[in-house]
Amino acid sequence: MITLKSYAGGEWRSGKGKGRLLHHAVTGEEIATCGSEGLDFNGMLEWGRTKGGSRLRSMTFPERATLLKTMAATLNENLPEFHEIAASYGATRRDAMLDVEGGIAALGFYASLGGKTLPASTFLTDGEIARLSKPGNFVGRHIYVPLEGVAVQINAYNFPSWGMLEKLAPSLLAGMPSIVKPATPTAWLAFRMVEVLIASGVMPEGTLQLICGSIGDLLDHLTCQDVVSFTGSASTGRKIRSHPNIVKNAVRVNIETDSLNCIILGPDITAGSPGLAHFTEEVFKEMTIKAGQKCTAIRRLLVPKETEQAVIDDLKQRLGALRVGDPAVSGVGMGPLVDQAAVESARRGIEALSREAEIVFGDPNRTQFEGAGTERGFFMEPILLRSKDADRAESAHEIEVFGPVATLMAYRDVEQAIRLARRGGGSLVASVHSEDEDFIRRMTFGLAPYHGRLMMINAKAAPESTGHGVVMPHLVHGGPGRAGGGEELGGLRSVHHYMQRIALQGDPERLEKLCAPAAGE
Amino acid sequence: MITLKSYAGGEWRSGKGKGRLLHHAVTGEEIATCGSEGLDFNGMLEWGRTKGGSRLRSMTFPERATLLKTMAATLNENLPEFHEIAASYGATRRDAMLDVEGGIAALGFYASLGGKTLPASTFLTDGEIARLSKPGNFVGRHIYVPLEGVAVQINAYNFPSWGMLEKLAPSLLAGMPSIVKPATPTAWLAFRMVEVLIASGVMPEGTLQLICGSIGDLLDHLTCQDVVSFTGSASTGRKIRSHPNIVKNAVRVNIETDSLNCIILGPDITAGSPGLAHFTEEVFKEMTIKAGQKCTAIRRLLVPKETEQAVIDDLKQRLGALRVGDPAVSGVGMGPLVDQAAVESARRGIEALSREAEIVFGDPNRTQFEGAGTERGFFMEPILLRSKDADRAESAHEIEVFGPVATLMAYRDVEQAIRLARRGGGSLVASVHSEDEDFIRRMTFGLAPYHGRLMMINAKAAPESTGHGVVMPHLVHGGPGRAGGGEELGGLRSVHHYMQRIALQGDPERLEKLCAPAAGE
Repeated sequence: MITLKSYAGGEWRSGKGKGRLLHHAVTGEEIATCGSEGLDFNGMLEWGRTKGGSRLRSMTFPERATLLKTMAATLNENLPEFHEIAASYGATRRDAMLDVEGGIAALGFYASLGGKTLPASTFLTDGEIARLSKPGNFVGRHIYVPLEGVAVQINAYNFPSWGMLEKLAPSLLAGMPSIVKPATPTAWLAFRMVEVLIASGVMPEGTLQLICGSIGDLLDHLTCQDVVSFTGSASTGRKIRSHPNIVKNAVRVNIETDSLNCIILGPDITAGSPGLAHFTEEVFKEMTIKAGQKCTAIRRLLVPKETEQAVIDDLKQRLGALRVGDPAVSGVGMGPLVDQAAVESARRGIEALSREAEIVFGDPNRTQFEGAGTERGFFMEPILLRSKDADRAESAHEIEVFGPVATLMAYRDVEQAIRLARRGGGSLVASVHSEDEDFIRRMTFGLAPYHGRLMMINAKAAPESTGHGVVMPHLVHGGPGRAGGGEELGGLRSVHHYMQRIALQGDPERLEKLCAPAAGE
Repeated sequence: MITLKSYAGGEWRSGKGKGRLLHHAVTGEEIATCGSEGLDFNGMLEWGRTKGGSRLRSMTFPERATLLKTMAATLNENLPEFHEIAASYGATRRDAMLDVEGGIAALGFYASLGGKTLPASTFLTDGEIARLSKPGNFVGRHIYVPLEGVAVQINAYNFPSWGMLEKLAPSLLAGMPSIVKPATPTAWLAFRMVEVLIASGVMPEGTLQLICGSIGDLLDHLTCQDVVSFTGSASTGRKIRSHPNIVKNAVRVNIETDSLNCIILGPDITAGSPGLAHFTEEVFKEMTIKAGQKCTAIRRLLVPKETEQAVIDDLKQRLGALRVGDPAVSGVGMGPLVDQAAVESARRGIEALSREAEIVFGDPNRTQFEGAGTERGFFMEPILLRSKDADRAESAHEIEVFGPVATLMAYRDVEQAIRLARRGGGSLVASVHSEDEDFIRRMTFGLAPYHGRLMMINAKAAPESTGHGVVMPHLVHGGPGRAGGGEELGGLRSVHHYMQRIALQGDPERLEKLCAPAAGE
């Protein structure tokens, strides 16, 4: 049994007490313990701010970019081990690649952004010079400087690698040190990655710390120079957002919670057409990749009444051919959920959904799955539901079942489809499959205020699409309302999130000198 | 006695019950009542979203800009009346111009921005196209669309006109209708301005509503499509930020609270030099304009030990020559505070400050002021304090006395000056007066993470400077931490605040068509 330690103030430390047990998702075996009791959380913040922050802030963007590049290279040397660890949370090869290689790719993306497009400076300028007086001897200009605190990054269990690295990349590039807190059920992978990074000596002292276990009283010690980035449940998100010290100090918080993402089939896509196959293939992928444990996964299918049955038939065929079980067994296409709590939560969710929908595929209580030793694993086969009345339905628009579960709803016209999509109350992403320009335009502007990302798939884009659920570092990730109201990635946009924008006023010569590259510190 | 009504759902309505009394700041006379009891706040939100929002969103940016321009012109026709009303809260002519003409100038600025630089479209594009696949048939692009809710704008009592108009301008330009809630003590001016705008017929139905009185249960009904912009006390700011419905729905909130802004004199500026006169003149203005009731006013003076006495002497002379009383009396340079509560609060604040500082100018309990009938007015003369030990002082860095009050602190070296400035815990603005490039550079990067704006004054910039406390619409207004963590103005930056950014993905031709101007709705 492995003990997952925390990396605090430059040392690896075990928590006091027993900690929490981690289980192998395929076999149910106990594999590790994880606890942070007794850690000096305030000390960690101080150490990050003083040691790590001053070091990072003295580096230029290209230098920080080189750090990211070296981190990516270091992690790349250990891929086989990371994939082995990912198997413990039930990842198929493809699932593990999304998490491990996907996370390293985010590092690579920001390394390239910082190295190729940002100045050899410690801060950024923003926008043009504003003339503030007639003769022109008094002007204004905005710059972004790194915040001088710590980026506290609290991640979800579904992406222990990608979730950590997609947050670390922009914050390190901005010049902020991090304290990473992985979700306990899958903390092993994050722990091992941090261990590799620290052991390699690539991380400047104080720039990266790790909490395996709970964050204790850490939030009590945050100041206006710190940032909290959180991915996880809506209820924890609310606790963070309304935490008294965070409210008092106006601590910057970026939150990504759950989301009832939808995919919409245009009325022009008919049964039997290649467009319909693109649609059902996308739904199948989103339901089964990572066993549906993706915050961007499709939870709601909006299809025209007349194609409803064709979509169901096609999906039943695809889902019926899927083999669920131990991903180590050849031919298995979907692994387990992360733990027993996840299975039970998904079953409760499906039960609630079933009151307003019928299950058209799958048995939430199936117990036999492929592979030896899977009897005590945390499996669930894909469940497709069909809403009885999409307008009246409540649960399908409100309950996010974090597993291989989706609900199909038939719609009559564009207005209803838009109304139903919006009932998610703010989502990370929606997809529209259609060749009809007018339909796409109406859906786009009907959905846009409620979404962070919108994918439009036609025959031309379909073969090259990166997929509904895949978050690209070029584009923002986040959504309004229920999705948490935050924004991550999006290239430079998320780098700004870890910096303070300040308006400088003064004589233009002085400002020009001040804003010249490498002027900082 | 005037009854200040609310404009709700297209009708002027009086609140039930007695409401709150407004007093003339110079004479103490009762001038108006103000109450909103019995208003249907949820109905106001609905009316704004449906009537006003759909109308504004169908307008292009230049059309919205024309609306702002017409609003400015309409208000400009009534300047004498607005100045008369401003006299009721004790404004001098200069104070009233900052508020009235300053607010109208913000409308004009955004009218010009929208008319000259924004596309004839209902939404904005953001950044470049990102290529997401090798062959290039799948790309990404960001756009900003107007949020489909209401901008709830809660203003402070010190700028009933400017505070309202600087928020309205960017939100209307973004395409969002507003509900304006002025602070009760000075609501008369906001009421009359809205009355003029509504009566003129310039506002499309539903785009502008007004609450004179409290906001009742309005916050309970906000969704992720609404925005709250608040200027006022830190305690109310906290209540808004942690309001359960705002937390639950991740309602966008922009907060500007109080701030212990500082001005720093460089060691190179010697006693008797023109630079010292610039410095003390600026402090004098900031202490006395609007009787110090400006969130950007200077509260802390950081001066080198060796110039401390010279600064005090100069300020004593300037303050000693100031006549305080009824601004209608010729030669009076400073009027009263807004009401009795403000005077009492300021006295309590000064008492707290006095425990760690000595008063070097002024008597907080002075009762005789210039002009007939001022005995019952809400006056206070300027108070300058000198900190006994700036490092040990607590209150000078924590208590914002919202009146003509500032504390001088002597510093030994650059490090100490930076440390002291930062002890404000996040401020709206700081000024640095110096000709020494190295000193300015160190102060700039030392202060930047804790500030929203930073003014650097040398001999060249001084004659054209717009002033420490004056907020220019070109530049962001807001600050981290104690200052609320929000951002207003800054040209287009605050327009984005009322819009949803969304990443679009699809085939490049389709995206190009979708993003072409005027494609919306």
